[in-house]
Amino acid sequence: MSSPTAVRPREDHAQADRLALSAATVRGAHIRTEDVQAWLAERRLANDFDVARIPFEELKEWSFEGGTGNLVHSSGQFFTVEGMHVVEHDIPLGPHPRRDWQQPVIRQPEVGILGILGKEFDGVLHFLMQAKMEPGNPNLLQLSPTVQATRSNYTKAHGGTAVKLIDYFVRPDRDRVIVDVLQSEQGSWFFRKSNRNMIVETFDDVPASDDLRWLTLGQIAELLHEDNLVNMNARTVLSCIPYGDTAPSALHSDTQLLSWFTGERSGRDIRSHRIPLASVRGWKQGPATIEHEDGRYFKVVAVSVRGSNREVVRWTQPLIEPIGLGLTAFLVREFDGVPHVLVQARAEGGLLDTVELAPTVQCTPGNYAHVQAADRPPFLDAVLSAPPSRIRYQAVHSEEGGRFLNAMSRYVAVDVDVDDIQALPGYTWATPAQLRALTRHGHYINVEARTLLACLNAIAARPSPGHQKGVVR
Amino acid sequence: MSSPTAVRPREDHAQADRLALSAATVRGAHIRTEDVQAWLAERRLANDFDVARIPFEELKEWSFEGGTGNLVHSSGQFFTVEGMHVVEHDIPLGPHPRRDWQQPVIRQPEVGILGILGKEFDGVLHFLMQAKMEPGNPNLLQLSPTVQATRSNYTKAHGGTAVKLIDYFVRPDRDRVIVDVLQSEQGSWFFRKSNRNMIVETFDDVPASDDLRWLTLGQIAELLHEDNLVNMNARTVLSCIPYGDTAPSALHSDTQLLSWFTGERSGRDIRSHRIPLASVRGWKQGPATIEHEDGRYFKVVAVSVRGSNREVVRWTQPLIEPIGLGLTAFLVREFDGVPHVLVQARAEGGLLDTVELAPTVQCTPGNYAHVQAADRPPFLDAVLSAPPSRIRYQAVHSEEGGRFLNAMSRYVAVDVDVDDIQALPGYTWATPAQLRALTRHGHYINVEARTLLACLNAIAARPSPGHQKGVVR
Repeated sequence: MSSPTAVRPREDHAQADRLALSAATVRGAHIRTEDVQAWLAERRLANDFDVARIPFEELKEWSFEGGTGNLVHSSGQFFTVEGMHVVEHDIPLGPHPRRDWQQPVIRQPEVGILGILGKEFDGVLHFLMQAKMEPGNPNLLQLSPTVQATRSNYTKAHGGTAVKLIDYFVRPDRDRVIVDVLQSEQGSWFFRKSNRNMIVETFDDVPASDDLRWLTLGQIAELLHEDNLVNMNARTVLSCIPYGDTAPSALHSDTQLLSWFTGERSGRDIRSHRIPLASVRGWKQGPATIEHEDGRYFKVVAVSVRGSNREVVRWTQPLIEPIGLGLTAFLVREFDGVPHVLVQARAEGGLLDTVELAPTVQCTPGNYAHVQAADRPPFLDAVLSAPPSRIRYQAVHSEEGGRFLNAMSRYVAVDVDVDDIQALPGYTWATPAQLRALTRHGHYINVEARTLLACLNAIAARPSPGHQKGVVR
Repeated sequence: MSSPTAVRPREDHAQADRLALSAATVRGAHIRTEDVQAWLAERRLANDFDVARIPFEELKEWSFEGGTGNLVHSSGQFFTVEGMHVVEHDIPLGPHPRRDWQQPVIRQPEVGILGILGKEFDGVLHFLMQAKMEPGNPNLLQLSPTVQATRSNYTKAHGGTAVKLIDYFVRPDRDRVIVDVLQSEQGSWFFRKSNRNMIVETFDDVPASDDLRWLTLGQIAELLHEDNLVNMNARTVLSCIPYGDTAPSALHSDTQLLSWFTGERSGRDIRSHRIPLASVRGWKQGPATIEHEDGRYFKVVAVSVRGSNREVVRWTQPLIEPIGLGLTAFLVREFDGVPHVLVQARAEGGLLDTVELAPTVQCTPGNYAHVQAADRPPFLDAVLSAPPSRIRYQAVHSEEGGRFLNAMSRYVAVDVDVDDIQALPGYTWATPAQLRALTRHGHYINVEARTLLACLNAIAARPSPGHQKGVVR
């Protein structure tokens, strides 16, 4: 790190004020919010994007490795599709596992960068968002961070052109860093994947680009109310923005919340390890899919991609395609006028450290349609049966389109009354500000909860019709 | 968690004041500080402790497992001695690893509890410390937490009597929790081990015991100046005490420090996995030791233990015995009158997540005695050559005596001048208060740095002769 010799305050409270100002600014200095969709449509037309499903044998550079059957790239880079074996015991070292399953999983040990560049215009922080095509996006093009790059990308292992603007993030000016934290990604689909979530401010003149636009946080918040518009990578970075907590109170103090979390993490005995893809029990491989014997969960598929504004113009790759629309929901309740959300300590096989904090409900409801109430995920029915007047937020968002095909989930925040809901073991109430404070660190808030956290910030920009509850910030 | 319905402040500032008062109180309501050594000596005499080295074949219940050669307990519990293979690349996925080695390692996947009970006497918080025998301690008996128990211990898998006082920690009253965090242990000797570090306050009358005494933080700080007196488990718990930062300023803001750390963690490509002990390259097994071919690093040995106040009166077990006295040191420097320590982002094979913050110097100097200056660990010579007047703190402490035999290190804090030292890549200056804030979370501060952090707090209780620098708190 560079070597200043004078001390400074440990916390920059002026920065929190600047972020709040950007969040309160719904009219940007550049593009109007209502023109963003048209700009994305224009970029979609200007580039000749095409994504087609192909059988595995038409994959170029990708193949099933001899012996393991893992799906690998000939360079040894990017990612691999392998197997994962997960065992969870109720009691550590007990004789009968509570859960024991195998599944395909994406392994990508290198850390990528998800970076958003910030800059003040007219005294208000704006953020440079990219119109980016990813083959798995249901609408191909979504609003993404300024740069999203695996290390293979930005060290140019892919043989394409240099990733633009990446230098702001590879060697950040520490005086201009707003967010810089390693965060986990989907523990159900990835084996211990994390990416570096970054926001860095600049005073430079950044050259204009057809694929980039400056937006305020207020504008982005409005756009978070649209379906499939703000991509997962943008959402996770936005969830880490260090807004201040203007009235730092909560049902449980930070020490209590962390103590509860430590107990949950200590008490869960879940262990997972990689296994050869060819040996995964309960899954079958066809010419164009690897799927579960019961047709549930997800499929591994392959696509060919053509796009003129990507670093590489043509490529083929595997993707994971989930079965069914997901539901990802926070129950929201106010205590003494302070909104809280009900979080669960959720164990996922692909997480590095046992459990992270997850939404109240995180599942695919289709899997439970014909299941008796007692066997359905806790609080699922409370979300599904919520009247429209209780829906504080909802939109459909899709997961990372570079790895997942049409992986959509309905993200919801539902108001509940004091008497409706009892927190169960493994669940607790926390304020969005408490969760936001934890996003300064890794291993706490899972990626689904981070999307919802970004969405809760968005409520400020557009309270949903039907009620005028306070801003959840 | 229990269900209050009223909010409270997220931070309890009164608690920080109560902790500061305890730290400032060097005269406790119970035993006098100068009588603690005599009490420990008395407990040593009152119990008939005996520890003897034995060949592996005399181990009871422990044996080398067929096939793997791992050293395991017949119950499948406690811990195992296995092998670890570590590979570090300079560039991710690069062809030539920078480091590639194999070694024996202790695997203990269950999380143990290290718990200290607190209680006010005469308006001052006191903490209940135990005179505990551990076979690997050079002096057998040291001051330890109120309870230190693996899950096997407190679920009584060992067939002994119930661990006393454990219920305060297994089901803590959340309103009385002062510290509760999972922290890593030695990444060079353990494979991904962590323990739950806890301090819980009680209002109960706790029955007196010959093996337990109430001490203030000021008393414990004085005792931290003694060699081999406060055990590792006590030190790591003490390092997590949430003292306030009365002048929260630093050379780098918290955001900058975390950004630097994220960069270090993202940039290191170190991967480790377990291998069979029988297959570990470069180590040889004899009748009573497993040792490195060059006689370096450490040995695996076995001991028989007899002690009348342990939960089990007789047992045998393996231990790891390091070669040589370690050196663990912080360089300390003031910027604008605010003391800072030089931390390194240190990769260790057994850490769960790549790197943690470590002392400036953490090594066994004997390994480098005949090595040219350029090949010696950075800053080692600066510590070894420091004049006595620059030694802000020093004492010899030993590592956990339940796993390590005579594992002693000299812990030092050395004052340096502005011009003496340039921070190298991988090193940065941070205040003790910044490090302390990070001990609220896991995966940040390694166990050696946590011991030094506890010692820095101890400087307040007894400034070392030779200078009257400010209190490092």
